[in-house]
Amino acid sequence: MKRGDAMKLYDFSLAPNSRRVRVFLAEKGIDTPLVSVNTRENEHFSDWFREKNSACTVLELNDGTCISESVAICRYFEEVQPEPALFGTGATERALVEMWNRRAELEGQQAVAQIIRNSAPMFKDRALAGVRGVPQIPALIERGKASLCRFFETIDQRLGETRYLAGESFSIADITAFVAIGFAGRVEIGVPNSCANANRWFADVSARLSAEA
Amino acid sequence: MKRGDAMKLYDFSLAPNSRRVRVFLAEKGIDTPLVSVNTRENEHFSDWFREKNSACTVLELNDGTCISESVAICRYFEEVQPEPALFGTGATERALVEMWNRRAELEGQQAVAQIIRNSAPMFKDRALAGVRGVPQIPALIERGKASLCRFFETIDQRLGETRYLAGESFSIADITAFVAIGFAGRVEIGVPNSCANANRWFADVSARLSAEA
Repeated sequence: MKRGDAMKLYDFSLAPNSRRVRVFLAEKGIDTPLVSVNTRENEHFSDWFREKNSACTVLELNDGTCISESVAICRYFEEVQPEPALFGTGATERALVEMWNRRAELEGQQAVAQIIRNSAPMFKDRALAGVRGVPQIPALIERGKASLCRFFETIDQRLGETRYLAGESFSIADITAFVAIGFAGRVEIGVPNSCANANRWFADVSARLSAEA
Repeated sequence: MKRGDAMKLYDFSLAPNSRRVRVFLAEKGIDTPLVSVNTRENEHFSDWFREKNSACTVLELNDGTCISESVAICRYFEEVQPEPALFGTGATERALVEMWNRRAELEGQQAVAQIIRNSAPMFKDRALAGVRGVPQIPALIERGKASLCRFFETIDQRLGETRYLAGESFSIADITAFVAIGFAGRVEIGVPNSCANANRWFADVSARLSAEA
Protein backbone atom coordinates (compact mmCIF):
# COMPACT_ATOMS: atom_id res chain seq x y z
CA MET A 1 0.00 0.00 0.00
CA LYS A 2 1.43 3.35 -1.00
CA ARG A 3 1.57 5.90 1.75
CA GLY A 4 1.58 9.64 1.52
CA ASP A 5 -0.91 9.81 -1.33
CA ALA A 6 -3.99 12.00 -1.10
CA MET A 7 -7.20 10.67 0.41
CA LYS A 8 -9.30 8.64 -1.99
CA LEU A 9 -12.51 6.66 -1.92
CA TYR A 10 -12.66 3.35 -3.75
CA ASP A 11 -16.11 3.19 -5.24
CA PHE A 12 -18.20 0.31 -6.60
CA SER A 13 -20.66 2.24 -8.72
CA LEU A 14 -23.43 -0.39 -8.59
CA ALA A 15 -23.05 -1.40 -4.95
CA PRO A 16 -25.62 0.00 -2.53
CA ASN A 17 -22.98 0.49 0.17
CA SER A 18 -20.94 2.70 -2.14
CA ARG A 19 -24.07 4.62 -3.00
CA ARG A 20 -24.78 5.23 0.70
CA VAL A 21 -21.40 6.93 1.00
CA ARG A 22 -21.90 8.98 -2.17
CA VAL A 23 -25.32 10.23 -1.00
CA PHE A 24 -23.85 11.03 2.43
CA LEU A 25 -21.01 13.04 0.88
CA ALA A 26 -23.47 14.88 -1.40
CA GLU A 27 -25.51 15.86 1.68
CA LYS A 28 -22.33 17.09 3.36
CA GLY A 29 -21.19 18.91 0.24
CA ILE A 30 -17.86 17.06 0.42
CA ASP A 31 -15.95 16.29 -2.76
CA THR A 32 -13.55 13.34 -2.40
CA PRO A 33 -11.59 11.76 -5.26
CA LEU A 34 -13.28 8.51 -6.32
CA VAL A 35 -11.40 5.53 -7.70
CA SER A 36 -13.80 3.27 -9.53
CA VAL A 37 -13.47 -0.48 -8.84
CA ASN A 38 -14.97 -2.64 -11.54
CA THR A 39 -16.81 -5.46 -9.79
CA ARG A 40 -18.15 -6.86 -13.04
CA GLU A 41 -14.56 -7.65 -13.95
CA ASN A 42 -13.78 -8.94 -10.42
CA GLU A 43 -11.34 -6.10 -9.79
CA HIS A 44 -12.32 -6.28 -6.08
CA PHE A 45 -10.69 -9.70 -5.94
CA SER A 46 -7.45 -8.40 -7.45
CA ASP A 47 -4.26 -8.31 -5.39
CA TRP A 48 -3.91 -4.54 -5.49
CA PHE A 49 -7.36 -4.10 -3.98
CA ARG A 50 -7.11 -7.00 -1.52
CA GLU A 51 -4.00 -5.37 -0.08
CA LYS A 52 -6.32 -2.71 1.27
CA ASN A 53 -7.68 -5.56 3.34
CA SER A 54 -11.28 -5.25 2.48
CA ALA A 55 -14.02 -6.62 0.32
CA CYS A 56 -16.04 -3.46 0.07
CA THR A 57 -16.09 0.33 -0.23
CA VAL A 58 -12.83 1.68 1.21
CA LEU A 59 -11.62 5.12 2.18
CA GLU A 60 -7.84 5.45 2.07
CA LEU A 61 -6.55 8.31 4.20
CA ASN A 62 -3.46 10.37 3.48
CA ASP A 63 -1.36 8.26 5.83
CA GLY A 64 -2.42 5.02 4.14
CA THR A 65 -4.95 4.00 6.80
CA CYS A 66 -7.80 2.14 5.09
CA ILE A 67 -11.31 2.44 6.50
CA SER A 68 -13.89 0.04 5.17
CA GLU A 69 -17.58 -0.39 5.97
CA SER A 70 -19.72 2.38 4.54
CA VAL A 71 -21.03 3.59 7.91
CA ALA A 72 -17.48 3.84 9.26
CA ILE A 73 -16.51 5.97 6.26
CA CYS A 74 -19.54 8.21 6.83
CA ARG A 75 -18.64 8.45 10.53
CA TYR A 76 -15.15 9.65 9.59
CA PHE A 77 -16.59 12.48 7.50
CA GLU A 78 -19.12 13.38 10.20
CA GLU A 79 -16.22 13.82 12.62
CA VAL A 80 -14.09 15.94 10.30
CA GLN A 81 -17.05 18.03 9.11
CA PRO A 82 -19.89 17.96 11.67
CA GLU A 83 -22.31 20.13 9.67
CA PRO A 84 -24.93 19.30 8.53
CA ALA A 85 -25.21 16.68 11.28
CA LEU A 86 -26.28 13.39 9.73
CA PHE A 87 -25.70 11.22 12.81
CA GLY A 88 -27.86 13.41 15.06
CA THR A 89 -27.04 15.89 17.82
CA GLY A 90 -27.32 15.15 21.53
CA ALA A 91 -27.42 11.77 23.25
CA THR A 92 -31.04 10.79 22.54
CA GLU A 93 -31.02 11.85 18.89
CA ARG A 94 -27.68 10.17 18.24
CA ALA A 95 -28.99 6.98 19.79
CA LEU A 96 -32.18 7.16 17.70
CA VAL A 97 -30.15 7.71 14.51
CA GLU A 98 -28.00 4.70 15.40
CA MET A 99 -31.12 2.63 16.09
CA TRP A 100 -32.92 3.52 12.86
CA ASN A 101 -29.82 3.31 10.72
CA ARG A 102 -29.22 -0.19 12.00
CA ARG A 103 -32.82 -1.22 11.44
CA ALA A 104 -32.69 0.14 7.90
CA GLU A 105 -29.56 -1.85 7.30
CA LEU A 106 -30.30 -5.08 9.17
CA GLU A 107 -34.00 -5.33 8.29
CA GLY A 108 -34.08 -3.45 4.97
CA GLN A 109 -30.81 -3.53 3.11
CA GLN A 110 -29.74 -6.99 4.25
CA ALA A 111 -33.13 -8.40 3.22
CA VAL A 112 -32.77 -6.94 -0.28
CA ALA A 113 -29.20 -8.25 -0.53
CA GLN A 114 -30.41 -11.67 0.57
CA ILE A 115 -33.03 -11.75 -2.20
CA ILE A 116 -30.67 -10.56 -4.93
CA ARG A 117 -27.56 -12.49 -3.92
CA ASN A 118 -29.48 -15.77 -3.67
CA SER A 119 -31.40 -15.43 -6.92
CA ALA A 120 -29.42 -13.52 -9.58
CA PRO A 121 -27.41 -15.75 -11.94
CA MET A 122 -24.47 -13.32 -11.72
CA PHE A 123 -24.11 -14.16 -8.01
CA LYS A 124 -24.04 -17.91 -8.45
CA ASP A 125 -21.36 -19.13 -5.98
CA ARG A 126 -20.96 -15.54 -4.78
CA ALA A 127 -23.97 -15.34 -2.50
CA LEU A 128 -22.03 -13.29 0.06
CA ALA A 129 -20.36 -10.03 -0.90
CA GLY A 130 -16.60 -10.17 -1.25
CA VAL A 131 -16.29 -13.94 -0.79
CA ARG A 132 -15.85 -16.54 -3.49
CA GLY A 133 -17.34 -20.02 -3.47
CA VAL A 134 -20.48 -19.33 -1.41
CA PRO A 135 -23.41 -21.17 -3.03
CA GLN A 136 -26.85 -19.57 -3.26
CA ILE A 137 -29.59 -20.77 -0.88
CA PRO A 138 -32.92 -20.37 -2.68
CA ALA A 139 -34.92 -20.56 0.58
CA LEU A 140 -33.39 -17.20 1.53
CA ILE A 141 -35.28 -15.48 -1.29
CA GLU A 142 -38.62 -16.02 0.46
CA ARG A 143 -37.16 -15.25 3.88
CA GLY A 144 -35.73 -12.01 2.50
CA LYS A 145 -39.04 -11.02 0.90
CA ALA A 146 -40.90 -11.58 4.16
CA SER A 147 -38.30 -9.53 6.08
CA LEU A 148 -38.62 -6.72 3.57
CA CYS A 149 -42.43 -6.71 3.94
CA ARG A 150 -42.03 -6.37 7.71
CA PHE A 151 -39.50 -3.58 7.16
CA PHE A 152 -41.93 -1.61 4.98
CA GLU A 153 -44.58 -1.92 7.71
CA THR A 154 -42.11 -0.89 10.41
CA ILE A 155 -41.01 2.28 8.64
CA ASP A 156 -44.55 3.10 7.55
CA GLN A 157 -45.68 3.06 11.16
CA ARG A 158 -42.71 5.12 12.28
CA LEU A 159 -43.12 7.66 9.46
CA GLY A 160 -46.71 8.19 10.57
CA GLU A 161 -45.23 9.71 13.74
CA THR A 162 -42.13 11.55 12.50
CA ARG A 163 -41.04 13.28 9.30
CA TYR A 164 -37.83 11.28 8.98
CA LEU A 165 -36.85 7.91 10.41
CA ALA A 166 -34.89 9.16 13.42
CA GLY A 167 -37.15 12.15 14.09
CA GLU A 168 -37.66 15.57 12.54
CA SER A 169 -34.18 15.80 11.00
CA PHE A 170 -32.87 14.02 7.93
CA SER A 171 -30.11 11.56 8.87
CA ILE A 172 -27.97 8.69 7.67
CA ALA A 173 -30.85 6.37 8.63
CA ASP A 174 -32.90 7.91 5.80
CA ILE A 175 -29.99 7.46 3.41
CA THR A 176 -29.64 3.77 4.30
CA ALA A 177 -33.37 3.08 3.95
CA PHE A 178 -33.62 5.12 0.74
CA VAL A 179 -30.69 3.30 -0.88
CA ALA A 180 -32.05 -0.09 0.26
CA ILE A 181 -35.38 0.65 -1.40
CA GLY A 182 -33.63 1.79 -4.58
CA PHE A 183 -31.70 -1.49 -4.50
CA ALA A 184 -34.98 -3.42 -4.13
CA GLY A 185 -36.13 -1.77 -7.35
CA ARG A 186 -33.65 -3.96 -9.21
CA VAL A 187 -35.85 -6.95 -8.44
CA GLU A 188 -38.98 -4.90 -9.00
CA ILE A 189 -39.98 -4.62 -5.38
CA GLY A 190 -41.15 -1.26 -4.13
CA VAL A 191 -42.92 0.27 -1.14
CA PRO A 192 -46.50 -1.08 -1.23
CA ASN A 193 -49.25 1.46 -2.01
CA SER A 194 -50.82 0.67 1.36
CA CYS A 195 -47.80 2.24 3.10
CA ALA A 196 -48.83 5.88 2.57
CA ASN A 197 -46.41 7.33 5.14
CA ALA A 198 -43.44 5.49 3.72
CA ASN A 199 -44.40 6.56 0.20
CA ARG A 200 -44.67 10.21 1.28
CA TRP A 201 -41.21 9.97 2.87
CA PHE A 202 -39.73 8.19 -0.16
CA ALA A 203 -40.97 10.94 -2.52
CA ASP A 204 -39.55 13.54 -0.12
CA VAL A 205 -36.09 11.93 0.04
CA SER A 206 -36.08 11.22 -3.71
CA ALA A 207 -36.51 14.94 -4.37
CA ARG A 208 -33.25 15.81 -2.58
CA LEU A 209 -30.30 16.64 -4.82
CA SER A 210 -28.25 13.95 -3.10
CA ALA A 211 -30.59 11.26 -4.43
CA GLU A 212 -28.76 11.46 -7.75
CA ALA A 213 -25.39 10.56 -6.23
CA MET B 1 -46.28 3.08 27.79
CA LYS B 2 -45.97 4.82 31.10
CA ARG B 3 -44.09 8.08 31.03
CA GLY B 4 -42.20 9.78 33.78
CA ASP B 5 -40.75 6.61 35.23
CA ALA B 6 -37.03 6.29 35.84
CA MET B 7 -34.73 5.01 33.12
CA LYS B 8 -34.61 1.23 32.82
CA LEU B 9 -32.97 -1.37 30.65
CA TYR B 10 -35.00 -4.39 29.56
CA ASP B 11 -32.60 -7.28 29.65
CA PHE B 12 -32.68 -10.75 28.07
CA SER B 13 -30.16 -12.51 30.25
CA LEU B 14 -29.21 -15.17 27.66
CA ALA B 15 -29.18 -12.94 24.58
CA PRO B 16 -25.76 -11.88 23.30
CA ASN B 17 -27.05 -8.40 22.45
CA SER B 18 -28.13 -7.86 26.03
CA ARG B 19 -24.76 -9.09 27.20
CA ARG B 20 -23.00 -6.58 24.94
CA VAL B 21 -24.82 -3.79 26.73
CA ARG B 22 -24.10 -5.22 30.19
CA VAL B 23 -20.37 -5.53 29.44
CA PHE B 24 -20.35 -1.99 28.02
CA LEU B 25 -22.02 -0.60 31.15
CA ALA B 26 -19.59 -2.51 33.38
CA GLU B 27 -16.67 -0.94 31.48
CA LYS B 28 -18.24 2.48 31.96
CA GLY B 29 -19.00 1.82 35.61
CA ILE B 30 -22.65 2.73 35.00
CA ASP B 31 -25.37 1.12 37.07
CA THR B 32 -28.78 1.10 35.37
CA PRO B 33 -31.89 -0.65 36.68
CA LEU B 34 -32.44 -3.89 34.74
CA VAL B 35 -35.86 -5.37 34.05
CA SER B 36 -35.48 -9.01 33.15
CA VAL B 37 -37.52 -10.27 30.17
CA ASN B 38 -38.04 -14.02 30.16
CA THR B 39 -37.57 -15.14 26.56
CA ARG B 40 -37.95 -18.81 27.46
CA GLU B 41 -41.54 -17.98 28.39
CA ASN B 42 -42.01 -15.77 25.31
CA GLU B 43 -42.39 -12.65 27.41
CA HIS B 44 -40.80 -10.67 24.55
CA PHE B 45 -43.89 -11.45 22.46
CA SER B 46 -46.23 -10.16 25.16
CA ASP B 47 -48.33 -7.05 24.59
CA TRP B 48 -46.70 -5.03 27.34
CA PHE B 49 -43.25 -5.55 25.82
CA ARG B 50 -44.37 -5.18 22.21
CA GLU B 51 -45.73 -1.75 23.08
CA LYS B 52 -42.15 -0.69 23.48
CA ASN B 53 -41.98 -1.33 19.76
CA SER B 54 -39.08 -3.67 19.70
CA ALA B 55 -38.03 -7.25 19.55
CA CYS B 56 -34.81 -6.89 21.44
CA THR B 57 -32.89 -5.22 24.26
CA VAL B 58 -34.54 -1.86 24.99
CA LEU B 59 -33.53 1.17 27.01
CA GLU B 60 -36.50 3.21 28.20
CA LEU B 61 -35.56 6.79 29.06
CA ASN B 62 -37.22 8.91 31.71
CA ASP B 63 -39.47 10.58 29.13
CA GLY B 64 -40.68 7.23 27.79
CA THR B 65 -38.48 7.25 24.67
CA CYS B 66 -37.50 3.67 23.87
CA ILE B 67 -34.14 2.98 22.29
CA SER B 68 -33.57 -0.48 20.90
CA GLU B 69 -30.56 -2.05 19.20
CA SER B 70 -27.71 -2.75 21.57
CA VAL B 71 -25.20 -0.48 19.82
CA ALA B 72 -27.69 2.42 19.91
CA ILE B 73 -28.08 1.90 23.65
CA CYS B 74 -24.30 1.87 24.11
CA ARG B 75 -24.04 5.01 21.96
CA TYR B 76 -26.52 6.76 24.27
CA PHE B 77 -24.38 5.99 27.32
CA GLU B 78 -21.17 7.01 25.49
CA GLU B 79 -22.76 10.42 24.86
CA VAL B 80 -23.96 10.96 28.41
CA GLN B 81 -20.74 9.66 29.95
CA PRO B 82 -17.83 9.95 27.49
CA GLU B 83 -15.20 8.40 29.79
CA PRO B 84 -13.75 5.87 29.36
CA ALA B 85 -14.20 6.29 25.60
CA LEU B 86 -15.39 3.00 24.12
CA PHE B 87 -16.27 4.35 20.67
CA GLY B 88 -12.81 5.91 20.15
CA THR B 89 -11.55 9.49 20.18
CA GLY B 90 -10.81 11.55 17.08
CA ALA B 91 -12.06 10.99 13.54
CA THR B 92 -9.76 8.14 12.48
CA GLU B 93 -10.10 6.14 15.69
CA ARG B 94 -13.87 6.57 15.78
CA ALA B 95 -14.07 5.36 12.19
CA LEU B 96 -11.85 2.36 12.99
CA VAL B 97 -13.99 1.47 16.01
CA GLU B 98 -17.10 1.68 13.84
CA MET B 99 -15.44 -0.47 11.19
CA TRP B 100 -14.27 -3.20 13.57
CA ASN B 101 -17.44 -3.20 15.62
CA ARG B 102 -19.44 -3.74 12.45
CA ARG B 103 -17.14 -6.51 11.27
CA ALA B 104 -17.38 -8.22 14.64
CA GLU B 105 -21.13 -8.02 14.42
CA LEU B 106 -21.75 -8.72 10.73
CA GLU B 107 -19.05 -11.38 10.27
CA GLY B 108 -18.80 -12.77 13.80
CA GLN B 109 -21.97 -12.41 15.80
CA GLN B 110 -24.36 -12.83 12.87
CA ALA B 111 -22.55 -15.99 11.79
CA VAL B 112 -22.93 -17.48 15.26
CA ALA B 113 -26.60 -16.48 15.37
CA GLN B 114 -27.10 -18.06 11.96
CA ILE B 115 -25.64 -21.37 13.16
CA ILE B 116 -27.62 -21.46 16.40
CA ARG B 117 -30.94 -20.12 15.12
CA ASN B 118 -30.99 -22.57 12.22
CA SER B 119 -30.02 -25.66 14.20
CA ALA B 120 -31.29 -25.54 17.79
CA PRO B 121 -34.67 -27.26 18.31
CA MET B 122 -35.79 -24.37 20.56
CA PHE B 123 -35.62 -22.02 17.55
CA LYS B 124 -37.71 -24.18 15.23
CA ASP B 125 -39.95 -21.71 13.37
CA ARG B 126 -38.16 -18.85 15.14
CA ALA B 127 -35.04 -18.71 13.02
CA LEU B 128 -34.96 -14.91 13.17
CA ALA B 129 -34.88 -13.08 16.51
CA GLY B 130 -38.14 -11.45 17.52
CA VAL B 131 -40.23 -12.86 14.67
CA ARG B 132 -42.58 -15.82 14.79
CA GLY B 133 -43.13 -18.33 12.01
CA VAL B 134 -39.70 -18.17 10.35
CA PRO B 135 -38.61 -21.73 9.47
CA GLN B 136 -35.02 -22.85 9.92
CA ILE B 137 -32.83 -23.21 6.81
CA PRO B 138 -30.30 -25.98 7.54
CA ALA B 139 -27.98 -24.84 4.71
CA LEU B 140 -27.27 -21.72 6.76
CA ILE B 141 -25.49 -23.78 9.41
CA GLU B 142 -22.60 -24.55 7.06
CA ARG B 143 -22.60 -21.04 5.61
CA GLY B 144 -22.44 -19.63 9.13
CA LYS B 145 -19.58 -21.95 10.13
CA ALA B 146 -17.57 -20.93 7.07
CA SER B 147 -18.19 -17.23 7.82
CA LEU B 148 -17.08 -17.72 11.40
CA CYS B 149 -13.84 -19.42 10.25
CA ARG B 150 -13.11 -16.42 8.02
CA PHE B 151 -13.88 -14.12 10.93
CA PHE B 152 -11.37 -15.88 13.20
CA GLU B 153 -8.70 -15.51 10.50
CA THR B 154 -9.56 -11.84 9.98
CA ILE B 155 -9.26 -10.92 13.63
CA ASP B 156 -6.18 -13.09 14.11
CA GLN B 157 -4.41 -11.18 11.34
CA ARG B 158 -5.53 -7.84 12.74
CA LEU B 159 -4.55 -8.74 16.30
CA GLY B 160 -1.07 -9.55 15.05
CA GLU B 161 -0.74 -5.82 14.33
CA THR B 162 -2.63 -4.16 17.19
CA ARG B 163 -3.40 -4.95 20.82
CA TYR B 164 -7.16 -4.54 20.41
CA LEU B 165 -9.35 -4.72 17.33
CA ALA B 166 -9.62 -1.01 16.63
CA GLY B 167 -6.05 -0.20 17.71
CA GLU B 168 -4.23 0.19 21.01
CA SER B 169 -7.35 1.03 23.05
CA PHE B 170 -10.07 -1.34 24.21
CA SER B 171 -13.39 -0.49 22.52
CA ILE B 172 -16.91 -1.66 21.87
CA ALA B 173 -15.51 -3.64 18.91
CA ASP B 174 -13.71 -5.89 21.40
CA ILE B 175 -16.90 -6.27 23.41
CA THR B 176 -18.87 -7.33 20.33
CA ALA B 177 -16.25 -9.84 19.21
CA PHE B 178 -15.77 -11.18 22.73
CA VAL B 179 -19.49 -11.70 23.26
CA ALA B 180 -19.86 -13.32 19.82
CA ILE B 181 -17.12 -15.82 20.66
CA GLY B 182 -18.74 -16.54 24.02
CA PHE B 183 -22.00 -17.13 22.16
CA ALA B 184 -20.21 -19.55 19.78
CA GLY B 185 -19.18 -21.54 22.84
CA ARG B 186 -22.80 -22.66 23.17
CA VAL B 187 -22.35 -24.76 20.05
CA GLU B 188 -18.83 -25.73 21.11
CA ILE B 189 -17.01 -23.58 18.59
CA GLY B 190 -14.00 -21.63 19.81
CA VAL B 191 -11.06 -19.70 18.42
CA PRO B 192 -8.83 -22.28 16.69
CA ASN B 193 -5.44 -22.97 18.33
CA SER B 194 -3.75 -21.84 15.12
CA CYS B 195 -5.00 -18.27 15.75
CA ALA B 196 -2.41 -17.35 18.39
CA ASN B 197 -3.04 -13.60 18.22
CA ALA B 198 -6.78 -13.99 18.61
CA ASN B 199 -6.27 -16.38 21.53
CA ARG B 200 -3.89 -13.94 23.26
CA TRP B 201 -6.51 -11.18 22.84
CA PHE B 202 -9.36 -13.42 24.00
CA ALA B 203 -7.49 -14.30 27.22
CA ASP B 204 -6.74 -10.60 27.75
CA VAL B 205 -10.38 -9.53 27.34
CA SER B 206 -11.65 -12.49 29.40
CA ALA B 207 -9.54 -11.28 32.33
CA ARG B 208 -11.33 -7.92 32.49
CA LEU B 209 -13.86 -7.54 35.29
CA SER B 210 -16.54 -6.63 32.75
CA ALA B 211 -16.33 -10.12 31.24
CA GLU B 212 -18.49 -11.37 34.07
CA ALA B 213 -21.38 -9.03 33.21
